Amino acid sequence: MDSLIIPKSQILDSAFFPESVAVAGASDQPISFGYHFLKHLLDYKYAGKIYPINPKKESLLGLKCYHSLTAVPGDIEFVICCLPSAKVLPMLDECAAKNVKIVHLLTARLGETGRPAAVELEKQIMLRARQYGIRLIGPNCMGIYCPASGISFAYNLPLETGKIGVVSQSGGASTLLMQQASLQGLRFSKAVSFGNALGLDECDILEYFIDDDETDIIAAYFEGVHNGERFLNTLKRATAKKPVVAIKGGKGRSGARATASHTAAIAGAHNIWQTVFRQTGVVEVTNLEEIINLLQLFCSLPPIYSNKAAIMGGGGGKAVIAADLAEAAGLEVPPLTDAIRAKLKEMGSDLWDWMGNPVDTSIFSDFGLIFTELPKIFEESPGYDFIIIQSSEDNPMDDDLWIYLVKGGVDLTIDVFKRGKKPVIGVLSGGKPGSDGMQNIRWKTLAEQRSRMIKEGVPVFDTIIEAVTAMGQYVRYWQHRMR
Amino acid sequence: MDSLIIPKSQILDSAFFPESVAVAGASDQPISFGYHFLKHLLDYKYAGKIYPINPKKESLLGLKCYHSLTAVPGDIEFVICCLPSAKVLPMLDECAAKNVKIVHLLTARLGETGRPAAVELEKQIMLRARQYGIRLIGPNCMGIYCPASGISFAYNLPLETGKIGVVSQSGGASTLLMQQASLQGLRFSKAVSFGNALGLDECDILEYFIDDDETDIIAAYFEGVHNGERFLNTLKRATAKKPVVAIKGGKGRSGARATASHTAAIAGAHNIWQTVFRQTGVVEVTNLEEIINLLQLFCSLPPIYSNKAAIMGGGGGKAVIAADLAEAAGLEVPPLTDAIRAKLKEMGSDLWDWMGNPVDTSIFSDFGLIFTELPKIFEESPGYDFIIIQSSEDNPMDDDLWIYLVKGGVDLTIDVFKRGKKPVIGVLSGGKPGSDGMQNIRWKTLAEQRSRMIKEGVPVFDTIIEAVTAMGQYVRYWQHRMR
Repeated sequence: MDSLIIPKSQILDSAFFPESVAVAGASDQPISFGYHFLKHLLDYKYAGKIYPINPKKESLLGLKCYHSLTAVPGDIEFVICCLPSAKVLPMLDECAAKNVKIVHLLTARLGETGRPAAVELEKQIMLRARQYGIRLIGPNCMGIYCPASGISFAYNLPLETGKIGVVSQSGGASTLLMQQASLQGLRFSKAVSFGNALGLDECDILEYFIDDDETDIIAAYFEGVHNGERFLNTLKRATAKKPVVAIKGGKGRSGARATASHTAAIAGAHNIWQTVFRQTGVVEVTNLEEIINLLQLFCSLPPIYSNKAAIMGGGGGKAVIAADLAEAAGLEVPPLTDAIRAKLKEMGSDLWDWMGNPVDTSIFSDFGLIFTELPKIFEESPGYDFIIIQSSEDNPMDDDLWIYLVKGGVDLTIDVFKRGKKPVIGVLSGGKPGSDGMQNIRWKTLAEQRSRMIKEGVPVFDTIIEAVTAMGQYVRYWQHRMR
Repeated sequence: MDSLIIPKSQILDSAFFPESVAVAGASDQPISFGYHFLKHLLDYKYAGKIYPINPKKESLLGLKCYHSLTAVPGDIEFVICCLPSAKVLPMLDECAAKNVKIVHLLTARLGETGRPAAVELEKQIMLRARQYGIRLIGPNCMGIYCPASGISFAYNLPLETGKIGVVSQSGGASTLLMQQASLQGLRFSKAVSFGNALGLDECDILEYFIDDDETDIIAAYFEGVHNGERFLNTLKRATAKKPVVAIKGGKGRSGARATASHTAAIAGAHNIWQTVFRQTGVVEVTNLEEIINLLQLFCSLPPIYSNKAAIMGGGGGKAVIAADLAEAAGLEVPPLTDAIRAKLKEMGSDLWDWMGNPVDTSIFSDFGLIFTELPKIFEESPGYDFIIIQSSEDNPMDDDLWIYLVKGGVDLTIDVFKRGKKPVIGVLSGGKPGSDGMQNIRWKTLAEQRSRMIKEGVPVFDTIIEAVTAMGQYVRYWQHRMR
């Protein structure tokens, strides 16, 4: 197991790579968290010692069960606590006896309820843990995902490791983010859902990721912060080393109310957050889909410091809409240069004077030229920083020819990507599985071609607006970082 | 055939419901438009007389072929011209001899190329058509879609008729719009792609739709206008009778360049367009996906004049993000009223003081109450104008239970929709078919549940941001119309 060789320079390593994990409140009831967390250790192939704790069971999921933490032989490094809140204080006493380093408190119904007794209990939990020198993750959170060691807080997350680190106050949001991102081929180094942040907070986790060699990009969901100055400084250090893409939850009145009842977080004025994000170069987005779109770019493209787009694919309406959306997203769509026009004329194009950028690829007479030569011209031209290729799914052909042309656009995109001379992103506007389920041949073709691009590592978007929005944010990130 | 009984109050009826259609330049080559348009008449079951015109063929696609328009016996009402531009003038002479009422000029390479000879030829075509009293659609456009009579300009459009009329300067954009919208269960009365607008223009087509009993909603894509004052007045009359959802193409510099080479349109200053849209109550959107989202609402919900949303489904992070996005989209998310809290307490909820709006449905102890009673409470409460139900696809269960809970959310949404007491929309955030194709069980479940909602007529969105954005636009439309 990796944990034996990784230096525990930081306390979080005791949660990411523990030698032993106990699940307090382990269960065989598939609706309970005590079942889920035990099952995850098995499903994700955690190779250390697993101690299910349940006072009434002799075994659980094929593992020997212990009636208490103190009944476990030897020390325990990491405890996942799925107990109700009333049982947390005595559990911490047991943890102290077993030299537990860190406890993930899944336990909820504490500060977030706003009830005085629960708020007081939460405070007592914090003091008790401090007294024993035990670090806490949570309460009211999903805890740890670390595929390299086999720890997870959800079903259907990748078994393979990747280079994105996730720090999230919300477990559900991080689960959704990772499940959906994994369909895009993205993989994660580690994730921490930290809930009410009674112990380790957003800064502790960010600091871990800053120095973590396995993490190249940080995706974050914040609701509140404990210490504004430390947060600002930590973010500065983070963005100096790695891209940080973040959502701030609780921007409006109802959202701020919701953060209070979700994680007891004080949302704070959003303009302060925006200032902090802008100053530190954090890429701020508003929803999970935007995070995934940006992660795609960070994982598959080199840095891009300038915003000039060459856009190809589809007919005139698509070209016009693409140009408008690209400019609105802060990109430039420069006209074809005189040199390019001269080259097109020389190559025999009969529309060299008419063609533009975006390129209307419904010009069938120059079809071969457009699909083979024009991308190369853009690759060589200093006038364009990257290429966006829309599949021509608005072509007017019957199914067979339509499929041929759409595949041709995807082939082209993959070719440009593989040549690696200029960054390229693909757009496949396929609509959504609908009234005829997944039977529509065109929808199905686009879904298959989408998978193909993902397998090749090409960043692919469903809509031009998502593509240009993400590219605008991506370029601005690198421009900020350059300054 | 319908055309025999529909009064031809307007010239466009000769294109929508002609007694005869000739395809000039008909072909048996599947890559040519002369093939497509002849094939469409057969595929969409046009029941009038079909005359393929090709000087070298005796029959095409099983139909008797004529060597010229004048070789056809008797008059011809509508001609679809797929000939190259050089052949258009002589074709118009033949049309005059056959008393043709209206010609769709698919023919391109005219004004949009910007070349003097082509611009001059376009002018000659206009004058020749005027001289004969023949009306033109186009040139450089896809023409007519009318499922009731069996005329179409694309493959894979619905055979059934619906209540949305489409007026679009771009054929590709309208094709994509209709193909993708049809997967959402949407259907169309008629569509006109009018390209360079040499003959009938945006106002002529809008005027037809204003008085068309088969059209309840108008979807539009404009690039330029011929007569600003007439356009303003026509839009005013249109929006007084029917919702109009529109994209203006050519807003920025590169977009305006692209409109010129696409349909020779002068894009005009975008702030003027925005003023016109605002004054007339046109719902302006920026991309095709937004149009489809709005059409879903217009086709399935009653008018909504106030913006107070009840939002349910998913855990705390989803709730916070939903609240923020809803407020940013101009919706209100009012807290639970005291009356509702009292009712929840009376019903035995142990979290009556903690629950909020958005409702965090990860509170499992009150599960039954939330999934059966809370929607009814929202339905009865005057404090909420509509309900947004997110599926709980962030629930932490294993596949079986996860599917059970997600289906439960969809059942709930359909129940509320069927009771019809308050408007409801569903959100299913399923991600996209990706690296493991369409095999991921969770993605597949969400796609199937999506289809189920569409079949039931429930408006369904993939993401909360799309849902609240469309709802914000929808409510503002009805508020504008009420004033």
